[in-house]
Amino acid sequence: MQPIAFIRSPFAEKFGVPRQSGLAGRVVSRVIFTREFSHPDFIRGIEQFSHLWIIWGFHCNRHDVEQPQHATVRPPRFGGNQRLGVFATRSPYRPNELGLSAVRLLEVAPDGSLSIGGADMTDGTPVYDIKPYLPYADALPGAQAGFASEKPSPTLRVLWQEGVREKLTEEQALTVEEILMQDPRPAYHDAPERIYHFCFASFEIDFRVENADLHILCVKHRS
Amino acid sequence: MQPIAFIRSPFAEKFGVPRQSGLAGRVVSRVIFTREFSHPDFIRGIEQFSHLWIIWGFHCNRHDVEQPQHATVRPPRFGGNQRLGVFATRSPYRPNELGLSAVRLLEVAPDGSLSIGGADMTDGTPVYDIKPYLPYADALPGAQAGFASEKPSPTLRVLWQEGVREKLTEEQALTVEEILMQDPRPAYHDAPERIYHFCFASFEIDFRVENADLHILCVKHRS
Repeated sequence: MQPIAFIRSPFAEKFGVPRQSGLAGRVVSRVIFTREFSHPDFIRGIEQFSHLWIIWGFHCNRHDVEQPQHATVRPPRFGGNQRLGVFATRSPYRPNELGLSAVRLLEVAPDGSLSIGGADMTDGTPVYDIKPYLPYADALPGAQAGFASEKPSPTLRVLWQEGVREKLTEEQALTVEEILMQDPRPAYHDAPERIYHFCFASFEIDFRVENADLHILCVKHRS
Repeated sequence: MQPIAFIRSPFAEKFGVPRQSGLAGRVVSRVIFTREFSHPDFIRGIEQFSHLWIIWGFHCNRHDVEQPQHATVRPPRFGGNQRLGVFATRSPYRPNELGLSAVRLLEVAPDGSLSIGGADMTDGTPVYDIKPYLPYADALPGAQAGFASEKPSPTLRVLWQEGVREKLTEEQALTVEEILMQDPRPAYHDAPERIYHFCFASFEIDFRVENADLHILCVKHRS
């Protein structure tokens, strides 16, 4: 297995990355092919497809301790209170650490990179394959998915401290709102005084959450 | 990358395997986990999902000659007459040789193996990951797919030589018909006298094709 491309995305860290592709449709990322796969022939005809599959690697997983693969994980849906088999979840902590995302193809750039929308990947993510999305084989709207049948609905109201929103462009601000309204906190964090740091593009965004309100306190350029 | 499971399927060879998952919904295969991943905890809760993603390896690709990756392939849709970039197709001849299939979960067997429907994999296929199908993230019925927007429609009428169909059970015969009506021949084969050999389960099935009629000539047990 060798990466065929790497992702450039506004997410420098895992914290804040949407929990599935498509949940933050405004997020724009890029697929930059490695030199070996950068010839335009590799993507000839790809502009016919509105959506693509990306198979990628969870490269942000912690590997500080050599530990065996756990058979079960605690999906955030249950507030971390229930264990499910790793193959019954989309958890990143899985054998072979492969991710799978359906993304919108926005543009094939003149340099041969792809601009994609709605991706749930951090900056630097290695890509192992790209395939066209084929609705006749891949779209199963009637599929049953038990506890994960419904899209997680945004739960938080995003409020900006005075003068803070203006540090971003309107599109950046709308994207940040789309991401943060989905509540990026780990399951069952409830500490209204705690300040979280969300890295987005070249910014660090500080916020805290009290009840259903997320307060953005400050936006500064990352050093 | 290590296989977490292997597929048992009625397809001993690539010839005859449906060209995407779901095209032959009657095909039943099994996912047999390797010893390391056979503990039932790994699939705890999986029965809630009607469909699963399988990420697998195209292990039947020819590797007799060490050759560089071609940037383009000739999809069967165009009768082999048009070249498209490998990342704009689902061709098996691709970097990292990863396959992606949405399959129906039919049953979790008491031994912990999974019975799946509609898979497009040969017997012995290595499986690298299994994920639940999440309709809210994965089902995009409005996706545009250019030349591959429509499901390939079955093109052949399957006719049995007298006395031949009875060598199979009714379910086997219906499955064989569902597979063969989709025309497994390589693009632009048009040789009415040619006899093709299709391996299905423990049988070898000989047929020829004349115009839009596929004649099954004989069914015998494979040695």
